[in-house]
Amino acid sequence: MTESLVTTTDTGVTAPLGFLAGATSAGLRTRSGLDDLALLFSESPCVAAGLFTSSAFQAAPVVLSRRNLADGKAQAVIVNAGCANAYAGAEGYRDSEEMARLAASQLRLAYSAVGSASKLRLADSDVLVASTGVTGHRLPIDKIRAAMPTITLDRDGGDRFARAIMTTDTVPKQAAATFTAGGREYRVGGCAKGSGMIHPNLATMLAFLTSDAPVERAFLEKTLRRAADASLQMLTVDGDTSPNDTLLILANGAAGGPTLREGAEGAARFREAVAQVCVDLAKGMARDAEGATKLIEVKVVGAKSVADARAAARTVAGSPLVKSAVYGNDPNWGRVLAAVARSGAVVEEEATSLFWQGVCVFQRGRTVAYDEKALSAATKSDEVRIRVDLGLGSGRAVAWGCDLTEEYVRINSEYTT
Amino acid sequence: MTESLVTTTDTGVTAPLGFLAGATSAGLRTRSGLDDLALLFSESPCVAAGLFTSSAFQAAPVVLSRRNLADGKAQAVIVNAGCANAYAGAEGYRDSEEMARLAASQLRLAYSAVGSASKLRLADSDVLVASTGVTGHRLPIDKIRAAMPTITLDRDGGDRFARAIMTTDTVPKQAAATFTAGGREYRVGGCAKGSGMIHPNLATMLAFLTSDAPVERAFLEKTLRRAADASLQMLTVDGDTSPNDTLLILANGAAGGPTLREGAEGAARFREAVAQVCVDLAKGMARDAEGATKLIEVKVVGAKSVADARAAARTVAGSPLVKSAVYGNDPNWGRVLAAVARSGAVVEEEATSLFWQGVCVFQRGRTVAYDEKALSAATKSDEVRIRVDLGLGSGRAVAWGCDLTEEYVRINSEYTT
Repeated sequence: MTESLVTTTDTGVTAPLGFLAGATSAGLRTRSGLDDLALLFSESPCVAAGLFTSSAFQAAPVVLSRRNLADGKAQAVIVNAGCANAYAGAEGYRDSEEMARLAASQLRLAYSAVGSASKLRLADSDVLVASTGVTGHRLPIDKIRAAMPTITLDRDGGDRFARAIMTTDTVPKQAAATFTAGGREYRVGGCAKGSGMIHPNLATMLAFLTSDAPVERAFLEKTLRRAADASLQMLTVDGDTSPNDTLLILANGAAGGPTLREGAEGAARFREAVAQVCVDLAKGMARDAEGATKLIEVKVVGAKSVADARAAARTVAGSPLVKSAVYGNDPNWGRVLAAVARSGAVVEEEATSLFWQGVCVFQRGRTVAYDEKALSAATKSDEVRIRVDLGLGSGRAVAWGCDLTEEYVRINSEYTT
Repeated sequence: MTESLVTTTDTGVTAPLGFLAGATSAGLRTRSGLDDLALLFSESPCVAAGLFTSSAFQAAPVVLSRRNLADGKAQAVIVNAGCANAYAGAEGYRDSEEMARLAASQLRLAYSAVGSASKLRLADSDVLVASTGVTGHRLPIDKIRAAMPTITLDRDGGDRFARAIMTTDTVPKQAAATFTAGGREYRVGGCAKGSGMIHPNLATMLAFLTSDAPVERAFLEKTLRRAADASLQMLTVDGDTSPNDTLLILANGAAGGPTLREGAEGAARFREAVAQVCVDLAKGMARDAEGATKLIEVKVVGAKSVADARAAARTVAGSPLVKSAVYGNDPNWGRVLAAVARSGAVVEEEATSLFWQGVCVFQRGRTVAYDEKALSAATKSDEVRIRVDLGLGSGRAVAWGCDLTEEYVRINSEYTT
């Protein structure tokens, strides 16, 4: 982190200049009254990039957003909670198209009514779509049509937007960072939802990033991918993957200055800012994961390759036995070794060392004597750090997860189709 | 199944002729008094085969048993619960060697004392070793040395053997099958332990099979591998893998007759009998999995390949969200589709159909209307069957798992190192 980078968590997608957001209740949720339809809008066209689910079944909004992103441009994002519009075939796709069209019409209408200097030129394909919620039900497009006009966009609407997209989340996840380049200040903002069915490859996770920096398309895409690789892709809650996962970034250049591209002044800082917002959102999702009481951070160093380090870190963070042990304040490090040993990473028992909450419990293949009571007490923390040194190379990676609790089971056995 | 095959569950490793078993309490468990040291012995030398953990860290008893099996022969198996003797380095290996030596000495002594016609010719390397229990602690070999002479072998000792090797298991898992060939009756018996940390690749699972059939070594090895592929390798409880997993089969030929080899009379029936015992043990482990209240059977048909079918079936059976839904009597079939779609199998949404407890809920990419209340009621069963037809080929596979319950979390957060 450079010193010029300030991270703040009390703002989200509307932290950057020129972005507005809002939400309304369309009655899509079982418990009605809560916002469930959210709109994000940039006053000027954006360069945009996205990453989507790796599932072989892609939900309709994912298929549509991929298509609408083909030109690398977007200006608005419409999101609903309550219904994922997945496994819905051609009808589902038409529903997502209709949702984008409704949002575009509403934005054109609102902007001509306000009487802005020039009429808003916004094509339906400039709107990206995301959906989250239960599967196997048709998207209630009539309710969305009726509710769309009731959305009011606001320069401080990021918080409302972040809350409207929540499903089993208990708190909204938002982050923002600022950086300077060429004497100008730029902002990156973001919010995310997702607290179950989360695993590497963006499972049931929606995340939206914005920036007022002017960014070249290829550099934006690369930056997003790199940031996701070291954050949202290293997040695991339960190993499941949804057909709806979506990560989008829109950069409108509203803060002015020359275009950020590979090697340009400020490019590295932009990359850091995006990475930091992504890490903050990933950690926020792990902390708020279904039933979680603790954040687990798994750092693997000394791996033969970065790929090995990533595999080992993710396997440990995803192990139900490690997660259960952390929940029980039990420094059961044998389970960490078992997870490392099945991760596919090259490992040698005699080269491996393990640290639990900073205490070395296993050093180069040998058990180390430690104070079990003290270590259990240290595990009674809302953040448990596990560090594995594979002793074979310089590959390193960090993964985040959470403990496995009775509450996770309760939530997921009661959250009905 | 041929009609000549009779499966019985009230006998285990001592069901075949010529096998004796016994157990004692060596005080290896936290709760003392329970048996924790078990010995299986064949009166005559056996052809033997084994399959072991895929973990990169192999526990000492696994390393030793692999070595002792190099000649394809064995005559006894000594097993302890309470301590896994994993991550124990060279000392751990010496402890496992000592455990085999103690068992061999005890058997030679016991047989000379009984005054059998010929003195028992049993090398230390004819004894296979398995351990299960907590990791990170040195094997209490002095306790094992003291307890070894107190083991009494018995022709009906299979049940006591099966109970002695249990850890968090609540019931012993045993199975047996008989078949005839050339007018003779042969038996295959088996028992297994394992109720957590179980996943494809034999995680924290110990299983011991015996047979009184005369079997050629290569055919025995192939038969064991095939049976495991369709049973224990298709069992998943929590996705974790232990360094101790061991599956052994000993065939002593005590029932006489010509040697069973590929293509011989009775070979196919032997294969069926071994397969059936393995499936019974796998289902028994799934039913008795930590905290489980239901067995989940996932059948995948219509896959492009058997490998695809296996991957899809195992992923569904292992999905925490599917497992939680089953626990909650919620036919949340969208979670099944999500698991199939991330399994790596070739899938096409429009070709996929899904049956939950026999009811078609999704047919060739389209939701099918069904009675949600009736299906939820049907899910209130101790066995939930999920069938996925990928509609692309003829590959098929069955996987077994169990529901995920608050009790699983309780057990694994309290089971301490």
